[in-house]
Amino acid sequence: MPLSPEQTAEIEELRSTPQPTLRATVPGMEAHLYKAHDVLDHGFVRVIDYMGDDAAICQAARVSYGKGTKSVQNDTGLIRYLMRHWHSTPFEMCEIKLHVKLPVFVARQWIRHRTANVNEYSARYSILDREFYIPAPEHINAQSTVNNQGRGGLLEGEEAARVLEYLKADSTRAYDHYEEMISQDGQDGLARELARMNLPANIYTQWYWKVDLHNLFHFLRLRADAHAQYEIRVYAEEICKIVADWVPAAYGAFEDYRLGGANLSATAIDCIRRIVKGEVVTQETSGMSKGEWREFEGVIG
Amino acid sequence: MPLSPEQTAEIEELRSTPQPTLRATVPGMEAHLYKAHDVLDHGFVRVIDYMGDDAAICQAARVSYGKGTKSVQNDTGLIRYLMRHWHSTPFEMCEIKLHVKLPVFVARQWIRHRTANVNEYSARYSILDREFYIPAPEHINAQSTVNNQGRGGLLEGEEAARVLEYLKADSTRAYDHYEEMISQDGQDGLARELARMNLPANIYTQWYWKVDLHNLFHFLRLRADAHAQYEIRVYAEEICKIVADWVPAAYGAFEDYRLGGANLSATAIDCIRRIVKGEVVTQETSGMSKGEWREFEGVIG
Amino acid sequence: MPLSPEQTAEIEELRSTPQPTLRATVPGMEAHLYKAHDVLDHGFVRVIDYMGDDAAICQAARVSYGKGTKSVQNDTGLIRYLMRHWHSTPFEMCEIKLHVKLPVFVARQWIRHRTANVNEYSARYSILDREFYIPAPEHINAQSTVNNQGRGGLLEGEEAARVLEYLKADSTRAYDHYEEMISQDGQDGLARELARMNLPANIYTQWYWKVDLHNLFHFLRLRADAHAQYEIRVYAEEICKIVADWVPAAYGAFEDYRLGGANLSATAIDCIRRIVKGEVVTQETSGMSKGEWREFEGVIG
Amino acid sequence: MPLSPEQTAEIEELRSTPQPTLRATVPGMEAHLYKAHDVLDHGFVRVIDYMGDDAAICQAARVSYGKGTKSVQNDTGLIRYLMRHWHSTPFEMCEIKLHVKLPVFVARQWIRHRTANVNEYSARYSILDREFYIPAPEHINAQSTVNNQGRGGLLEGEEAARVLEYLKADSTRAYDHYEEMISQDGQDGLARELARMNLPANIYTQWYWKVDLHNLFHFLRLRADAHAQYEIRVYAEEICKIVADWVPAAYGAFEDYRLGGANLSATAIDCIRRIVKGEVVTQETSGMSKGEWREFEGVIG
Repeated sequence: MPLSPEQTAEIEELRSTPQPTLRATVPGMEAHLYKAHDVLDHGFVRVIDYMGDDAAICQAARVSYGKGTKSVQNDTGLIRYLMRHWHSTPFEMCEIKLHVKLPVFVARQWIRHRTANVNEYSARYSILDREFYIPAPEHINAQSTVNNQGRGGLLEGEEAARVLEYLKADSTRAYDHYEEMISQDGQDGLARELARMNLPANIYTQWYWKVDLHNLFHFLRLRADAHAQYEIRVYAEEICKIVADWVPAAYGAFEDYRLGGANLSATAIDCIRRIVKGEVVTQETSGMSKGEWREFEGVIG
Repeated sequence: MPLSPEQTAEIEELRSTPQPTLRATVPGMEAHLYKAHDVLDHGFVRVIDYMGDDAAICQAARVSYGKGTKSVQNDTGLIRYLMRHWHSTPFEMCEIKLHVKLPVFVARQWIRHRTANVNEYSARYSILDREFYIPAPEHINAQSTVNNQGRGGLLEGEEAARVLEYLKADSTRAYDHYEEMISQDGQDGLARELARMNLPANIYTQWYWKVDLHNLFHFLRLRADAHAQYEIRVYAEEICKIVADWVPAAYGAFEDYRLGGANLSATAIDCIRRIVKGEVVTQETSGMSKGEWREFEGVIG
Repeated sequence: MPLSPEQTAEIEELRSTPQPTLRATVPGMEAHLYKAHDVLDHGFVRVIDYMGDDAAICQAARVSYGKGTKSVQNDTGLIRYLMRHWHSTPFEMCEIKLHVKLPVFVARQWIRHRTANVNEYSARYSILDREFYIPAPEHINAQSTVNNQGRGGLLEGEEAARVLEYLKADSTRAYDHYEEMISQDGQDGLARELARMNLPANIYTQWYWKVDLHNLFHFLRLRADAHAQYEIRVYAEEICKIVADWVPAAYGAFEDYRLGGANLSATAIDCIRRIVKGEVVTQETSGMSKGEWREFEGVIG
Repeated sequence: MPLSPEQTAEIEELRSTPQPTLRATVPGMEAHLYKAHDVLDHGFVRVIDYMGDDAAICQAARVSYGKGTKSVQNDTGLIRYLMRHWHSTPFEMCEIKLHVKLPVFVARQWIRHRTANVNEYSARYSILDREFYIPAPEHINAQSTVNNQGRGGLLEGEEAARVLEYLKADSTRAYDHYEEMISQDGQDGLARELARMNLPANIYTQWYWKVDLHNLFHFLRLRADAHAQYEIRVYAEEICKIVADWVPAAYGAFEDYRLGGANLSATAIDCIRRIVKGEVVTQETSGMSKGEWREFEGVIG
C-alpha cells in the first residue's frame, strides 16, 4: 500500500481545486494529475505537472505567434516528419514532472539518463521507510545463458523459495539494525548519513523527476525495450500510457519510428536490397557476424 | 511595431479562452501570458508557458506528496536557505517558455547558455523580415578605454550621425539585395540558405526558448549585470520583472544572494577581517592586484 | 590563405617538440596535430588535442585496470556491439579539441549542438579580420523546388554573376564601414561590441571546440548527411577523415551503423516483411505517406 | 588492499612504455598516471588520462594559433581574471579521466553531478567483489543535533562497537547470500541483475569518470567543503591534490576564489559597509536570520 490516508487526503485536496489558466491544457493529463499509478509492490508514478501538448510541438517548430495549429491532421503530419528526420528540438518544448517511488537499484539505472532534473528523498536528512521490493514468484528468474546481462527461465521450487527467504530476511534484519543504530533511545544514535549504508538496494526511495519530451522518449525507447530489466521496464511502460494520453500524435510517431522501428546498418540494407532482387542471402554471405544476423532475421521476420 | 494586426488577433484569441487546470497556477504569470513586452526597437519577450511556482520549489525540496506548503513564511525561509547553500536542484523544478524576438548579434551571445531548449526561426526554410536593430542615439557609445570589452562615453555630432547612417544604409542595401537574390521573378532565385549570408548581425531573428529556473537565474545573473552588453541586458531586465511576478520568493532570494551579492576571495575575506579589527589595509598590503583591489573597494564601499 | 607566416611558424614550433607521455597516443592523430586542413575559401579545421583511442573505449566499457585490450579483433567486435546497441557512454570516454575557422552562418548552425565546449573569438574584445565566404561558382544554387530547406540546380549566367557581385560588394562595404566606425583616428571610435552588428553572416569567425566522440558522431551523422547545407557539410567531411585516423574501429562502426545505415519505422519493417514474402507493395498499400514512401524506396533501392 | 598483483602488473606495464606526443603534457600529471591513490578502506582514485594544462586554458581564452603563452606570469594573471569573473568556458578546455573505486552510497551522491561521462562496473553483467566500506572507529559519529544532514560527536564504547558489528555482520551475510543465490552449483542460479538487490550500500563499485576542469571545480567546491559527508570529501581532497599538480595556476585561483572564498548577500555586504564605517551591527539590526548571521560571523571572523 504505497499511500497513507494522509497522503491520499492531500492528493484528493489538490485534485479538488481546479484553477483557470490560459496555458495549453490536456484533459487526458488533467485526469492523471497527482494520482498514483502503482508499479511493482510498493512503487508508483504520479504526474505532478506538465507543460505543452501536441500543438505546442508544432507551434515551436513553426516559431509561430498564435496557437500555430492549422488542423489536427496537419499537426500529426508535421510531428511525424519531425520524428522521422530527427528534428528533436520541438519535442523538447514539452516538459513533464513526475513523482516516482522506486527501488534503489532501479533508481541507479534511471539516474544514468542525465538530461533531467531530479530531487531525491535524502537519507542524510530523513529516515527511510521500511519498504523493500520483493519480486513476485513469477519474476524470479535464472541468469540467462545467452545474454550476459539478462535473465532466463523462472526459478522453481526450493531454489525460488530460498531466494525469497533471503531477500525478505536480509531486508528485515538490515532495517531492524538501521533503526537500532539511529535510535536515540538510551544512546546517542548513529548519524543517518552513515546508518543508511547498511540498507540493501531493494529498499524504496522516491524522487521528483522532470524531463522534456525528447529526452523522455529517449529514456522510454531504452527502458520500455524488451532488453531492459523487468523492474525498470514496468515503470517505463506505465509512463508510456501516460504520454499517450498527453501528446497522442507525438506518442504515435514515437511508437512507429522508435519503439517499433529498427536501425539497420549499411550492410543490412545491402542484404535487404539483394533479397528484394531475389538473391538468397545467408549469414555466411551477408557480411554480418552471427549476432548481427540473428538480430537482422528478427527484423525482417 | 513588432506585431501585426493578425498576430495581435491570434494573441487575443489565446488570451480569451481560459481552461480549468489542476496544476500549480500563478495569477501574476497568467496576466503576462502571450503578451509581447517590447524590447529595443523591434524586439519583444513573450511568456508562452510556465511550470511551477514558489511552492513547487519547496515541494520538490521536501519530495512531498501534497502541496508541500506549511506556510508562505516557511517556504520563503526554505527558499532562501536553498539559494544560500547552492542547492540548485529544487529551482530546476520550475520551467518557463518564452518567445523572443532579438537581433542576431544578441542571439549569438544568448545561445552560449547551453542548458536550455531552443527553436529558432529558420532562414534556410523561411524568408526573414526586413527588421534591423538601429541603436537609439543615446546608446551609440565609444569603445571603453578601461575595459576592452565594454563601451565608454556617448558618440556625438557628426561621428554619431555617420554611424547611424552606415547602419541604416548598409542594412537596407543588404536586405534589398537579399530580396533581389531570392526573387523568382524572371530568374531562378538563389537558395535561401545561401542568400541569408548577406544579412548583417543587426537583423532580427526570433525563437522559442525554454529553460528551468536555476539556469534562468544563472543567465540573468550574467546578463542583467552592469558589465553585460546593453542590448542583451534590456532583455534580461525585462525577464527579471516577469520572474518577480512568477516566483516572488525565489526572485527575492536571487536578488539578495546573487544579483546584489558578491563573491569574495580568501584574500578579500582576510582583508575584511583585518579592516574589521581596525587595521588600515591598502592595495599594496592587501595581497590583491590593482584590478582586484578596485573591485574590492567597489564591494565594501 | 588562412594562415599568416607568423601563425605557420607558431604551428611549426609546436610540431617540432615531442614530449614523452604515458597516455594513450595515436600516431595517425599525432600527424594531424596543429596542422590546418583547409575548408571553403578561408576556413580550416585543426586538431589541437585528443584523449583516448579505440582501446580506451573498450577499457571504459570493461572498467578495466590495464589497457583492457585482449586483441584488436576483440576490440573491434566489442566496439561494433556497443555502437549497434546504442551503448553510448564508452564513446564519451574519447575527447577531441579542434580549432575551427568558419563563416558566422555556419557557426550559428554548428552551435546548436549543445553538448560541447566552445571558446569563440570575441568581437566585443577584438577586431575581426576582413575575411568573407564567397561561394565558388559551382556552389551558387537555386532554391530547391521540392525541399523547402535545400538547394536545387546551379544558377547561371547573369544571375550567378549578380549574386557574386552583391556578396562581394556588400561584404567589402560593410567591412569598410566597420573599420571606419571603430577607427580612433580623429574621432572617438564606436565600441567594437556595437560596430560588429554591421557585419554580414558570411564573415569568418573562429573557435576552439571540444567534444566527446559520442556527441561528435551525433554531429557528424547530421552534418555529413546529404541533406546538410553544403557549407557545414564540408567541415563535417573533413572531420570524418580525421576521426577515421584517430579511432579507426569506432569510425568503421559509425560508418556502417549510422552514416550508411537507416532508421526504419514499424510500418516500413512490415512492408519489408511483406515484400520478402513475395507480396507486391505500393505506396497505396504501404500505409505510408508519399514522402515516407519516397524515402523508403531510397532505402530498399 | 585495493589492487591484486595482476592489476598492479597491468599498471606497471602501462607506466613503463612512454610514447612521444606533440600534445600538451604535464610532468606532474605523468607521475600520477595509472597509480592508485588509496581512499577509505578499499577505495582509490587513479588518473587514466588528461587533456590540457594551464597554458591550454589561456590558449582557448585567446583563441590563439600557437601555444598562446606570453609568459607564465601573464597566464596566471589571465587565469585569475577568468576565475574571478566567472568566465568558465576556458576551464572547460581541460579534461581529466579518472578510475574510481568507491562505496555505492558515495557513488549515489557523486552521480548527481550530471555534466560528466561515466562508465560504471555493471552488476547486471558481472559479479561484484566482496568488499565493503566499514568506517574506522574515528569516523563513527552521532547524528548532529544542529544540522539535520550532518554528523556530531564520536560514538563510543558499546554503541560504537554494536554499529561496527552490525555493519560487518550484515555485509558478510548479504554477500554470502548473494553468492549462494547466483551460484550455478547444483541449481539454476538467480540472475545477477536480481541478486544484486540484496547488497547493501556500503559495497564497493567502480567507474571511469571523465569531466572537464570547470565542472570538476564545481564538484570539488561542493564535495571538498566542510559540510560534505566525510566519505565523499576524502575523494574530493585526493582529487584536489592531483589537480594542483596538473594545472597549478588554475588550482591556485580556485583555492582563492572558490574553496577559500565566500558568497555574500546584498544584506551581508551592507552590514560590512556599516561595520567598516564604525557602526556596531548585531543580528537584530543586520536584517539577517539567525542562521545567516551565524554564517556571516564565520566569514568575517
